Amino acid sequence: MVYLNGNFIPKEKAYISVMDRGFLFGDGVYEVFPVYDKKIIGFEAHLSRLQDGLDAINIKNPHSNDDWKSLIKKIISFNIKNANQAIYLQISRGCDQNRKHTYDELDPTIYIQSSLIGPREKNSLFKGKSAITREDIRWLKSNTKATSLLANTLYAQEAKENNAEEAILLRDGIVTEASSSNVFIVKDNCIYTHPKGRNILPGITRDITISLAKKLDIKVNETTFSKEQLMEADEVWITSSTREILPITSVDNNIINSGLSGPIWSLIYDQYQLLKTA
Amino acid sequence: MVYLNGNFIPKEKAYISVMDRGFLFGDGVYEVFPVYDKKIIGFEAHLSRLQDGLDAINIKNPHSNDDWKSLIKKIISFNIKNANQAIYLQISRGCDQNRKHTYDELDPTIYIQSSLIGPREKNSLFKGKSAITREDIRWLKSNTKATSLLANTLYAQEAKENNAEEAILLRDGIVTEASSSNVFIVKDNCIYTHPKGRNILPGITRDITISLAKKLDIKVNETTFSKEQLMEADEVWITSSTREILPITSVDNNIINSGLSGPIWSLIYDQYQLLKTA
Repeated sequence: MVYLNGNFIPKEKAYISVMDRGFLFGDGVYEVFPVYDKKIIGFEAHLSRLQDGLDAINIKNPHSNDDWKSLIKKIISFNIKNANQAIYLQISRGCDQNRKHTYDELDPTIYIQSSLIGPREKNSLFKGKSAITREDIRWLKSNTKATSLLANTLYAQEAKENNAEEAILLRDGIVTEASSSNVFIVKDNCIYTHPKGRNILPGITRDITISLAKKLDIKVNETTFSKEQLMEADEVWITSSTREILPITSVDNNIINSGLSGPIWSLIYDQYQLLKTA
Repeated sequence: MVYLNGNFIPKEKAYISVMDRGFLFGDGVYEVFPVYDKKIIGFEAHLSRLQDGLDAINIKNPHSNDDWKSLIKKIISFNIKNANQAIYLQISRGCDQNRKHTYDELDPTIYIQSSLIGPREKNSLFKGKSAITREDIRWLKSNTKATSLLANTLYAQEAKENNAEEAILLRDGIVTEASSSNVFIVKDNCIYTHPKGRNILPGITRDITISLAKKLDIKVNETTFSKEQLMEADEVWITSSTREILPITSVDNNIINSGLSGPIWSLIYDQYQLLKTA
């Protein structure tokens, strides 16, 4: 069962008009909430970022946080009992009578669904994952979690076709983020990640990772770093709500940390797992 | 009546799945064909650009040019007899079972509709239109006519809210194009427009305008020009398939050519009108 514009219906019956601006223009925002045994990680932070996205593209939030909470909890309860799931929530600007770039006030389209999150056992991550690098050609509002995602999906596909987990993006030689995750490196026991701003999505898992590191007294520098620094890092990770904190041990076929996940990743990973049952 | 995936149906019954990647990711391309009394302007050029767009995002063209021609002619005949119309054709990558950034081969979603083109009487254009300028924050594949159009629609809306016809975009001080049209300036009887490449859409009306100017022995420079050159131009125009060639006589409240359309625009405008009945 999914939620569409006020109704809980089977996914195969969830249809929208071709006049939906989500379809015609990629004119919408979305959020993904990770859920572990009914516990939502970073719920308030996700709702706050949703509000930021709506503000950035001038859509009035159609619900209060309490309303969102009850809709999402209903979807969680409907779907996969006690399983780990990702709740996907999309708001598009809605349907107009005719296709035109400009808009008047419309009733937003609201869609919510749940899907399973695969397990991320520590043992299986020991050898890490591989990544490729590509030029960051995305728009300069990448801090808005918008559904105009074509660039991101093309890079995700390129990663897949290269048997890689992710495409790490470079703008003017600087690592921004990856196609659907933030990027961290470790060098000499310090953690580095691109500062917030219009070049990266302010990842909730990015924030959690930083606060876990600080709790462990590990230094975190929110500063830019180059492709060379990426290649010479002691550890490389990507973070996202559904992938959590994943070690990357190969970038463009260049081996990182002898091809093994690193000790700082291991510490942070353990701390993150504790959040699921806290 | 519109066309959706093999069927001619009323627009209000044209529905797509929420799993359509056009809705979830803005993962598609589109074309707009201007039609005057059943004559399509630049038909082959539009089909060729459609192919380029499909190639750029790795969607297999679902139809031959002959098939497109007959589908479009049917939509033209169904809808508004002998009127000027814009045929909108969108192809998205199609629907997957689950939402994921990567894709396997899917059946593309094909949507075609017609809408009226308003008249562009020369008399009504004598005083021209106004424009605002904004930073060009779009992705660096703006030569692909993709449906991930959020940046473009936000700028169109900003123009509308400033009572302007268009938002002219600047990247690093250089005029690229406008939110949904190409930009031309005239200075000392020479025409200037941004060269093709990843920063601008290769407009069909842009190409037609250039060839009409050359036919009239007016020099055309496909070179970049700055905001300062825009502001000091003798004439400023925008071109698009539905807006044809429109004089801009005010940019950021700065008056161009004493607020009147210019003589070179007038010559090109007349030549363009002849194409409709040629």
